[in-house]
Amino acid sequence: SRELFVLTYGALVAQLCKDYEKDEDVNTCLDRMGYGIGVRLIDDFLARSAVKKCRSYSETADMIAQVAFKMYLGVTPSVSCSSAAGNEFSLILDKNPLVDFVEELPAERASLCYCNILCGVIRGALEMVHLAAEVTFLQDRLKGDAVTEIGITFLRKAEDRKHKRN
Amino acid sequence: SRELFVLTYGALVAQLCKDYEKDEDVNTCLDRMGYGIGVRLIDDFLARSAVKKCRSYSETADMIAQVAFKMYLGVTPSVSCSSAAGNEFSLILDKNPLVDFVEELPAERASLCYCNILCGVIRGALEMVHLAAEVTFLQDRLKGDAVTEIGITFLRKAEDRKHKRN
Repeated sequence: SRELFVLTYGALVAQLCKDYEKDEDVNTCLDRMGYGIGVRLIDDFLARSAVKKCRSYSETADMIAQVAFKMYLGVTPSVSCSSAAGNEFSLILDKNPLVDFVEELPAERASLCYCNILCGVIRGALEMVHLAAEVTFLQDRLKGDAVTEIGITFLRKAEDRKHKRN
Repeated sequence: SRELFVLTYGALVAQLCKDYEKDEDVNTCLDRMGYGIGVRLIDDFLARSAVKKCRSYSETADMIAQVAFKMYLGVTPSVSCSSAAGNEFSLILDKNPLVDFVEELPAERASLCYCNILCGVIRGALEMVHLAAEVTFLQDRLKGDAVTEIGITFLRKAEDRKHKRN
């Protein structure tokens, strides 16, 4: 059930805020934790979703939004491509279940990316299917933005980089 | 989805193990966090389960096992009453989803009650329906026991205590 998860996640963020004075350090820690989770979660995702290999960044972004988010968070972000090169995507969340119990960020935590673990999860999971990506929050309703937006920038494929080195 | 929750919980326990050297301190912290979660989760539980007021400790223990555990963890522990006074109960879990990704406790963490947050959650939720209880792990498969057993000892009711004081 989602409520227990959401409250447990809140306890985790609160603990990290005790541990680290700087919001940036909390954000980094959440991202790193998420990475570790994504690396392990991908097996569960592939097994349960039984999806086929994506053939483009666009298909991959859709898969994250429509299958993975739906499966793990019960919501489906909309996806938009935000670069002519076709490697930058935005996941737009009208509703973010992870903040269900959060009223607003405290004034002294204005730079906290409360849900930063999600960026790490996406990054870790993508890496396990050989896709390097940068994943960051571009907008956040907790910070007064109209929507919550996660930006995914696919980097040159690992194989390409290897090829280039050779 | 449970996997994301279970992995996030693992990240929380790992963080606390970094923060606190002594297992007892980690256990206490998990219990305290769980208490804060239970205090908030009870509203969600009462709203979604639409259960009636329990009229005995035995009914309450059954409710925790059959409705709450089912709802939030997807498992149903068996319940046994372990005192003649009728205020001590055991929830026996054959399968504990919270440890799905845990192989075993590291040797230097032999006293860790990995799932201690559950004790706090139960304690906090019970307190919100005016039931004081002590909740502890009595057995734990992670520590080599045959089953995982959570003990709930209902203490004298708050109203009784108040009555007595008056």
